[in-house]
Amino acid sequence: MTRIRLGMVGGGADAFIGGVHRIASRLDGHFDLVAGALSSTPEKAKKSGEALGLDPDRSYGSYDEMAEAEAGRSDGIEAVSIVTPNHVHFAAAKPFLERGIHVICDKPLTATFDDAAAMEAAVKDSDALFVLTHNYTGYPMIRQARAMVEDGALGTLRVVQAEYPQDWMTDAVETEGVKQAEWRTDPERSGAGGAIGDIGTHAYNLAAFVTGQLPDRLAADLHSFGAGRALDDNAHIMLRYDSGARGMLWCSQVAPGRENGLRLRLYGDKGALEWAQEDPNYLWFTRHGEPSQRITRNGAGATEPATSVSRIPPGHPEGYLEAFATLYTEAAGAIRAVQQGQSRDAVMGALPGLSDGLDGMAFIRACVASSKDDAAWVTI
Amino acid sequence: MTRIRLGMVGGGADAFIGGVHRIASRLDGHFDLVAGALSSTPEKAKKSGEALGLDPDRSYGSYDEMAEAEAGRSDGIEAVSIVTPNHVHFAAAKPFLERGIHVICDKPLTATFDDAAAMEAAVKDSDALFVLTHNYTGYPMIRQARAMVEDGALGTLRVVQAEYPQDWMTDAVETEGVKQAEWRTDPERSGAGGAIGDIGTHAYNLAAFVTGQLPDRLAADLHSFGAGRALDDNAHIMLRYDSGARGMLWCSQVAPGRENGLRLRLYGDKGALEWAQEDPNYLWFTRHGEPSQRITRNGAGATEPATSVSRIPPGHPEGYLEAFATLYTEAAGAIRAVQQGQSRDAVMGALPGLSDGLDGMAFIRACVASSKDDAAWVTI
Amino acid sequence: MTRIRLGMVGGGADAFIGGVHRIASRLDGHFDLVAGALSSTPEKAKKSGEALGLDPDRSYGSYDEMAEAEAGRSDGIEAVSIVTPNHVHFAAAKPFLERGIHVICDKPLTATFDDAAAMEAAVKDSDALFVLTHNYTGYPMIRQARAMVEDGALGTLRVVQAEYPQDWMTDAVETEGVKQAEWRTDPERSGAGGAIGDIGTHAYNLAAFVTGQLPDRLAADLHSFGAGRALDDNAHIMLRYDSGARGMLWCSQVAPGRENGLRLRLYGDKGALEWAQEDPNYLWFTRHGEPSQRITRNGAGATEPATSVSRIPPGHPEGYLEAFATLYTEAAGAIRAVQQGQSRDAVMGALPGLSDGLDGMAFIRACVASSKDDAAWVTI
Amino acid sequence: MTRIRLGMVGGGADAFIGGVHRIASRLDGHFDLVAGALSSTPEKAKKSGEALGLDPDRSYGSYDEMAEAEAGRSDGIEAVSIVTPNHVHFAAAKPFLERGIHVICDKPLTATFDDAAAMEAAVKDSDALFVLTHNYTGYPMIRQARAMVEDGALGTLRVVQAEYPQDWMTDAVETEGVKQAEWRTDPERSGAGGAIGDIGTHAYNLAAFVTGQLPDRLAADLHSFGAGRALDDNAHIMLRYDSGARGMLWCSQVAPGRENGLRLRLYGDKGALEWAQEDPNYLWFTRHGEPSQRITRNGAGATEPATSVSRIPPGHPEGYLEAFATLYTEAAGAIRAVQQGQSRDAVMGALPGLSDGLDGMAFIRACVASSKDDAAWVTI
Repeated sequence: MTRIRLGMVGGGADAFIGGVHRIASRLDGHFDLVAGALSSTPEKAKKSGEALGLDPDRSYGSYDEMAEAEAGRSDGIEAVSIVTPNHVHFAAAKPFLERGIHVICDKPLTATFDDAAAMEAAVKDSDALFVLTHNYTGYPMIRQARAMVEDGALGTLRVVQAEYPQDWMTDAVETEGVKQAEWRTDPERSGAGGAIGDIGTHAYNLAAFVTGQLPDRLAADLHSFGAGRALDDNAHIMLRYDSGARGMLWCSQVAPGRENGLRLRLYGDKGALEWAQEDPNYLWFTRHGEPSQRITRNGAGATEPATSVSRIPPGHPEGYLEAFATLYTEAAGAIRAVQQGQSRDAVMGALPGLSDGLDGMAFIRACVASSKDDAAWVTI
Repeated sequence: MTRIRLGMVGGGADAFIGGVHRIASRLDGHFDLVAGALSSTPEKAKKSGEALGLDPDRSYGSYDEMAEAEAGRSDGIEAVSIVTPNHVHFAAAKPFLERGIHVICDKPLTATFDDAAAMEAAVKDSDALFVLTHNYTGYPMIRQARAMVEDGALGTLRVVQAEYPQDWMTDAVETEGVKQAEWRTDPERSGAGGAIGDIGTHAYNLAAFVTGQLPDRLAADLHSFGAGRALDDNAHIMLRYDSGARGMLWCSQVAPGRENGLRLRLYGDKGALEWAQEDPNYLWFTRHGEPSQRITRNGAGATEPATSVSRIPPGHPEGYLEAFATLYTEAAGAIRAVQQGQSRDAVMGALPGLSDGLDGMAFIRACVASSKDDAAWVTI
Repeated sequence: MTRIRLGMVGGGADAFIGGVHRIASRLDGHFDLVAGALSSTPEKAKKSGEALGLDPDRSYGSYDEMAEAEAGRSDGIEAVSIVTPNHVHFAAAKPFLERGIHVICDKPLTATFDDAAAMEAAVKDSDALFVLTHNYTGYPMIRQARAMVEDGALGTLRVVQAEYPQDWMTDAVETEGVKQAEWRTDPERSGAGGAIGDIGTHAYNLAAFVTGQLPDRLAADLHSFGAGRALDDNAHIMLRYDSGARGMLWCSQVAPGRENGLRLRLYGDKGALEWAQEDPNYLWFTRHGEPSQRITRNGAGATEPATSVSRIPPGHPEGYLEAFATLYTEAAGAIRAVQQGQSRDAVMGALPGLSDGLDGMAFIRACVASSKDDAAWVTI
Repeated sequence: MTRIRLGMVGGGADAFIGGVHRIASRLDGHFDLVAGALSSTPEKAKKSGEALGLDPDRSYGSYDEMAEAEAGRSDGIEAVSIVTPNHVHFAAAKPFLERGIHVICDKPLTATFDDAAAMEAAVKDSDALFVLTHNYTGYPMIRQARAMVEDGALGTLRVVQAEYPQDWMTDAVETEGVKQAEWRTDPERSGAGGAIGDIGTHAYNLAAFVTGQLPDRLAADLHSFGAGRALDDNAHIMLRYDSGARGMLWCSQVAPGRENGLRLRLYGDKGALEWAQEDPNYLWFTRHGEPSQRITRNGAGATEPATSVSRIPPGHPEGYLEAFATLYTEAAGAIRAVQQGQSRDAVMGALPGLSDGLDGMAFIRACVASSKDDAAWVTI
């Protein structure tokens, strides 16, 4: 497979997630980054392009310019990564979708619900693939967990405990020059959700990915502990599933000592699964009435859904970047398959996409609505 | 100090908690069990008394008989342990309270709110001490956690995450002859709360013990997964504190692989504390911005509140029975102090008592009320 | 079963292990401590006796006096606990053995090899039971591990990794008034072994207890890091077994952060077992080619050897004192059985005794001999 | 920085480590793999080259051919990765070293001591850099540990405990078609060391890297548990350091449940450090007398040596491939620096090289010599 020509929107100096996308695209060798509109400030865009070794002709001042120029080149980009703050997602994705250039977009889908609807329409109108990087779904043990749930290892699902605590916004760092915190606490750029948008959507998506179920109702208690912070930095959410399962989701950015404590625990009438993102190579499985087992990535007990996305033997830990790279690798496969004539729907496999993004937006909307109504139950 | 003469109500064959109380009373050598009404079935009571080596004359067929007889002996019991199912707590405690015999009672306080009110009146009318065995408060690292919170180690408390999952009622064991499950799923004997009464009250009490705060409102989603089960076996509860803190409490009896997963995590604006009952000799402390520390019972970093209730050096684990014994030892001290003329209020120290029991009943009442109102916020 | 009347030699104020023996004897309710010679200083002995509530007539100034007096009483002690420093073990045990009073003795057996031989003779000449408190053998999961090895869970044993690091002698605390360190670093009172005698014998005994094998040769590199310390405080030892298995044993008193890090890891051609004393309620079992399992005390996967010495349900941790108490409880059963006419050899069950003590002495002797010969192989 | 043109010797189909080197070279974007002699079987070499998308003209049938051809191209490779079995290392490296092409070679240095000497001479005669991929040295927390030791965090080093257990050769897999096991158990291809060469050298190197010390003597007990296995699959080794420190090293390929259990524990008179490869983002540090701290990669407590080789925030785990990639990235920097005129010695920084390889060979030689002499002490 020759490498896919990739462009990037956002991801200039000081950006965290852009660098992650670049490593992820490189790791398995299926993409070459050849173009970019790396910053909304043209000068910074140029400088960042230089630092990354982009051909200066393909380091653009805006995404519109880039979409037009690249679409006109015979060696133009085949796919683009959108790694801007949330409020730019739709505007940046649109010109590429219109030109049939495949889009790999960071989550959440958009900042506003209007933008989400517009994105939905744009994706539907396009032939291009739309991949949303709910990257935690790329972890091998998450793939295995999902397969185990589907195979009935838990019996009937009863209880879902999802959480994602972080500590980096314990202090009011958005007032101290931390760029990542500035836009994430700004409703204009982040949308209606703070912690729920940034990390709550990840926990919500992960639970749905593994269980194969979405809750139909939630009750959310959002709160802002940071002085003067406009968006939630802590959220307690109760979940009810149509199937009868019940759940809880906690996300926080003000939990000292918790770095990226994404954790999923599932309990059914026959068994349980527990997984923690900070120790991602282990999946704990309990058949009710038997000792708990520690299944390791690519090790004893690991099955095809895990081993097929593992690169190295067990005991040599893979981490966040490898899980992220798995999405890119699967996106590469999907892009090549579409280019060879397969239908867009047939190639997505486990890849998160538009519907996951819309589910995330519905989650944010429901959380905000519930919280405004004093944590009343809201249909999602 | 000579040993305190102790009686016991309940705790015959097949009972779990009676045996625990007996070991706890013995461990530090401050009590001698000399009398009992060990079962509501007189024959079984006699047999159990024999098995424990009680003087046959002091193995009674009922608590009333026992209270009267023991009160009439010059060497009669000084204290009594009430270890019956919940619905008997008040009736069993009453005759002893009336005669000034100190009462050590298992939790929750009572099965019904009427009984709770009656217990409150009976305690107030009595000169006797009333100790409620919220035994987890006896763990050394819980004592240390409490002191650290009081000393400001967390700064302003923001988030409380309490949970207590178990797995032993995953199947409908109450229909399979498991006595412990029978009465715990029977509203007549347990009261209005299932999991919330049996273990939720422990988590609730522990959070209050350590933080020094009680929430003023809660929203509870109680559920029964066990087929035909009359009481909740899983509860998701959101908490709001007058101080502005927010919390979540999850308790479950249907979580495969979780044995007694009581866990408390507290986050403030300056630091965090985390503790798990199954690994009770460790307390995790994070000063915001510094590496997490593992403080060990009686080891480096342990302070007087922990070391004063530790028996052995660090690295030699103490467990559940030692924590329980600490309550008995402190009760012994309190009893001797009262006998020597100190006031009842002055001697309780860290010992849980009537007010903790009433708080637990209020918690159960609020949970049930909220859940009936579709998890609406209820003032506790 | 009525309680066994127990005496104690050693264990006065400042002693650590005496208090442990007292709790252990009390915990399951099979002993009453009724007499003592609690210190070699008569005055201190009296005071300690008073503090423990002993009848002043039965608080003796010396073990000889105590043995004679108690043997003459119709209600005299039936058993005695020897909890003195090592060099007194034999002299203290002798008068009781001679009078048929059962002996429960702390380890190692004695300080000198002469004393060990004399102890052997005295035990053989006596009708009394001799129990040596290699207390770690009382842990439920150690009992289970032993049964699993015997049942072939490991296949052919290949590799034994035993270790026992501590940190309490990192500094020269024997010069700073720490009594426990004073006698343990004094060859006159401890014998030829420092760390190897105090904790190495525990690791050695535990490996033998679980594997059912003793190595036949060892090569030992003993060292003293503490300035001016006469006995080893760190030892690296290689082991060879007649069966073909190989092993390593490390013990240290100068390993900062390690409190009582006794750990045993066993690898065979079919499976593995791993256990750590600081987390004693878990036994890790791996069938080769399958995921590792975490077996919990009294929980799923626990079998009779573990459950029969467990007091409480899984998830409520038992610890060091319970394991110690199990030896006392089994000793009580053995004493009653002997009193009812059974033969001494028939009643010991899993209880460690004289032969374990002699094995420990042979281990110390071999370590010292090997180390003097530059860690040459020595037959044990 | 433009990418360095890289070639590869070995690493065709079925090879594990070749794929690792390719990912590592790609991850940070500093290399382009443009040529290869991927197998000793020319046909297989071609096929592997195709699979990797190499220009067919630059997919060579032998390393000699490749060295000559690439040296003659203006766009020829600047560096070559040697990822063959050990016995080919020298022959494969030689033609590149002779032509000034930088060599990145897998460990151990060579199979034979003659080859090691020849490699030493060849490196000395060359201007090219020679990097040996002792990849575990690339872990951020290992870098931090090394800096902490250097800064005196441990005080005087006393005890070194290094171990590297694996389980993959528990059965005689070399007879069952497992290629990795075939050559690793073949003295012709692996050299005199089995487990000690394959993984023992890693543990040995890691201890040296972190402590800054090499032991001067060792006593080794090598053993082969696998039926008919010609090389050791388990080794127990005692270490003595000129500084007075003592150590133990255990490596095994027959320890069920252990995947890549490389672990290093260091104890000094002021503190301790503990690290485990399977959980590489944590470094445990104990200042003697204080609670143990868990320092996280790029998190609180992490310092420049760790953060400068971290790519992403704490709590998002980096793993084995990232650590490996760090060596490639540092090699890229060193190559560019040499190309810009800096001296070879000045640019290596923390990169392992020839002397580490020679130390590893001396370790293997000493282990084999000691073991033949019944584990006598041997000067390394």
